[in-house]
This record gives sequence, structure tokens and C-alpha cells, in this order.
Amino acid sequence: MKLRIFVTLKPGVLDPQGRAIHKALGGLGFGGVNDVRAGKLIELDVADDTSDDRIDAMCRELLANTVIENYRIERV
Amino acid sequence: MKLRIFVTLKPGVLDPQGRAIHKALGGLGFGGVNDVRAGKLIELDVADDTSDDRIDAMCRELLANTVIENYRIERV
Repeated sequence: MKLRIFVTLKPGVLDPQGRAIHKALGGLGFGGVNDVRAGKLIELDVADDTSDDRIDAMCRELLANTVIENYRIERV
Repeated sequence: MKLRIFVTLKPGVLDPQGRAIHKALGGLGFGGVNDVRAGKLIELDVADDTSDDRIDAMCRELLANTVIENYRIERV
């Protein structure tokens, strides 16, 4: 079973990586960029009988830092 | 205009980050994980009149290393 986990910083959390990308885009001459937020995309291939709770636990225990990050699970 | 850019390693390209996550999941007792691939999710907020070509250029010039990475653009 294939899954996609989207991990993004919670609103209000400083995003130095996003800022660096935003600045670099400007430096390359790309105007009109209002904001950039950088996150993680983790593609998992797990056994078909893996429960939603187990996948949620993987996210909470390892894939996302739930203090500053949100995560969203998508089945492919 | 809000966009999501998904940047993933091309198939066959070694993914040390994915491997590290895979190993860590095993260490935490999560069995049944066949594969893990780590990528980037970049959320852009750009001016409404930004053309597809400009967005594509942002990806090719900065957001993705097209030698080893694929990118996909999604409008939110």
C-alpha cells in the first residue's frame, strides 16, 4: 500500500528554508513571489494490513515534529 | 495564487534520507514498511498573473535539481 505524508510547518512558525528559497528566487529575477513555505513529502510503501493508527503513530513518533509541524496522510 | 511543488528523487537515485527514515521506523518497532522515499513540498504564493512558464522556470532553475529530481506543480 502506497502512502504520501505531507509534513508542513504550522502557521506562524519561522521558516528559514522557505525564506532562503524566497530570497534566492528574487535573486534569480523571479518577481511576484509573495511567500514560500518549505515542507517534506515522504512516500511510504507499507504492508496492506497496516492500520490507520499505525500510520498515524509513525507520523507522530518520527516523521513529523508535532510541536511545530502538521502532517497529512494521503493514500496513493 | 497558491501552488504546491512536489520535488521527488528520480527512480533509481539513491535516497539516503529515505533509508535513514526506513531504518528509524524499524528501530521504533514499525514493521511492514517496504520502502521510504523522502522528497520536498514547497508551497508558493505568487502573483495571479504568473505564467506557467515562469513557474516551470522557477522549478528548473532553483526548486528542483532536474538531474536527479522530478517536480510536479499543483494549483491549490
